[in-house]
Amino acid sequence: MAESPTIRFGILGCADIARKVSRAINLSLNSTLHAIGSRSIDKARRYAEANGFHPSTKIYGSYDEVLDDPDVDAVYVPLPTSLHLHWATRAAEKKKHVLLEKPTALNVAELDAILGACDKNGVQFMDGTMWMHHPRTSKMAEFLADQQQFGHLKSIQTAFSFAADNDFLENDIRVKPDLDALGALGDAGWYCIRASLWAVDYELPKFVTALRNPVKNKAGVILSCGASLHWEDGKIATFYCSFLSNLTMDITAIGTKGTLHVNDFIIPYKENDASYRTVSEAWFTDMDLEWNKKPSEHIVNSDLPQEVLMVKEFSTLVDGIKRHGSPPDKKWPMITRKTQLIIDGVMASIDKGFEPVEVS
Amino acid sequence: MAESPTIRFGILGCADIARKVSRAINLSLNSTLHAIGSRSIDKARRYAEANGFHPSTKIYGSYDEVLDDPDVDAVYVPLPTSLHLHWATRAAEKKKHVLLEKPTALNVAELDAILGACDKNGVQFMDGTMWMHHPRTSKMAEFLADQQQFGHLKSIQTAFSFAADNDFLENDIRVKPDLDALGALGDAGWYCIRASLWAVDYELPKFVTALRNPVKNKAGVILSCGASLHWEDGKIATFYCSFLSNLTMDITAIGTKGTLHVNDFIIPYKENDASYRTVSEAWFTDMDLEWNKKPSEHIVNSDLPQEVLMVKEFSTLVDGIKRHGSPPDKKWPMITRKTQLIIDGVMASIDKGFEPVEVS
Repeated sequence: MAESPTIRFGILGCADIARKVSRAINLSLNSTLHAIGSRSIDKARRYAEANGFHPSTKIYGSYDEVLDDPDVDAVYVPLPTSLHLHWATRAAEKKKHVLLEKPTALNVAELDAILGACDKNGVQFMDGTMWMHHPRTSKMAEFLADQQQFGHLKSIQTAFSFAADNDFLENDIRVKPDLDALGALGDAGWYCIRASLWAVDYELPKFVTALRNPVKNKAGVILSCGASLHWEDGKIATFYCSFLSNLTMDITAIGTKGTLHVNDFIIPYKENDASYRTVSEAWFTDMDLEWNKKPSEHIVNSDLPQEVLMVKEFSTLVDGIKRHGSPPDKKWPMITRKTQLIIDGVMASIDKGFEPVEVS
Repeated sequence: MAESPTIRFGILGCADIARKVSRAINLSLNSTLHAIGSRSIDKARRYAEANGFHPSTKIYGSYDEVLDDPDVDAVYVPLPTSLHLHWATRAAEKKKHVLLEKPTALNVAELDAILGACDKNGVQFMDGTMWMHHPRTSKMAEFLADQQQFGHLKSIQTAFSFAADNDFLENDIRVKPDLDALGALGDAGWYCIRASLWAVDYELPKFVTALRNPVKNKAGVILSCGASLHWEDGKIATFYCSFLSNLTMDITAIGTKGTLHVNDFIIPYKENDASYRTVSEAWFTDMDLEWNKKPSEHIVNSDLPQEVLMVKEFSTLVDGIKRHGSPPDKKWPMITRKTQLIIDGVMASIDKGFEPVEVS
């Protein structure tokens, strides 16, 4: 491969989310969209045209052609989850760096095969969890790590729901057992679980317990569910995820000394600025009439949207490997694996009649 | 008893919370503080003086003297929970209307004895859950009842925690098994449970399940716990309550069409205005780059603090009984009983190893 500071992406498939990521690839100064492949070359052509891809973008009628293109450095894989094992592994074997949509696999065994292939072939792996890359996220993490302002985390409650329409509930890949068997848990729950892990600096809980009576469709795919995560020291996380209720994306993290609130953690209300609220050592005025302080709102501006920052970070890592012989970063795959482990635990808890399931 | 539009209160005991409620009794135009009794008349005298009680306020060296005072219409009972059965029942038998602090009893059997005594003696019962009386609460309820704006409730997450200091954790009645055996569940969890019931117009859940591993003190009193409430139609509530983490009081209610957020539901940040946020039919802009709308903040002004409105409402009901022969209101005791039923269910679930417990 030629030495270049610009990472050339290939995209596998014409998923809706690839519109946002292809825009991000073009907005990030260290990457460019080189190719897109679909099982139908006509579909790929129409997709490229509809989304204003540069005329030089290669259009392929198969995923393999993308992987066989020597000018493709990295692939973005937004295929249905059931196809991740095959195509992410194959991409790694073709020495393509892998930016993989979430949920990254149907279970951690599959993910381990993907990560093993990336490891063996010296390619970078990262999942497509965009909010991790917003500068707000690191500012919030600073607050959670501040022993004076936040203390030790005791509880984190998260929610991600959106009210899918009938077309989604009938036809979307996320409700099809053969395509995305994890349903709302893999799609929406992924973010809640990630947020819970993020808030504790990725310490794994000791066990997880699914909340009773998840809602499933006729094919058995989860449309709505929840779970609690329990850490050795008593920290607890609960989450609710759903395709069946109004768009909501909340984190409430409560520490011994402080509280963090954010209500748009996955996709900020606005692209260029995002906010969160904190309060430390809140108490009451005399006779408990009022609070002694109100939470403060913190606004974090971002020149680039979070998905661009994601692509930029991924491309920087790939560039380090390509041009400087750096080893692939291990943090991102570790975070992915822990998230997938919890997903597995929640699924196992549901299967075991909502018994607690140890995570390790 | 003399006919009078002003309801004369007696207070049993010198609890801290009685400072706030005695102020409320004096601020409410249809009530007045007539007497206070303590087991120690010196303590009662000091308390009356420290809190600026009117010199005409009767000071008694026992609770019975308050109940025997024919000029006392109603009593406010902020005694430790273990004393509620005895004193609230006795007050009712003395034909005193009863405003009872929460948790109202150690279990629903005790509460039923209290409610039975009130019923038999034709006196009004109300618990001391102040936020129910804030005009914000009814505005929020309007939103939750709005089929166009909110739709059907799917999930409610609530939290109430405060970081008690060492003195509280050693000495407060709420950590003593013989005084307030329900601990944080009865004190802080009460509000979360009430909010969950309020949000569904007091429909009882089918079953409740305690979250695993509540934190208890050496005496076995709960310092921190949580639970999930499950309704027949799939609605779910989860809550977290604690004496061990920073002051937080949240409701997040998610419906099929709308979301409600409030972060100071129990005691508003400020006495005279309180706010909440709603958003309806939120979705994304093209490519899921941003939200199509941000939540709206709604500010509700209140001329009188919520505890004054509570006393006023209670006194109005008492006045109706006294002067107009109205029957006691049944809504308030019903709400109390359902709250206590859930408390019992959560305690039972903890005792049964976190199994679900039916509520009926």
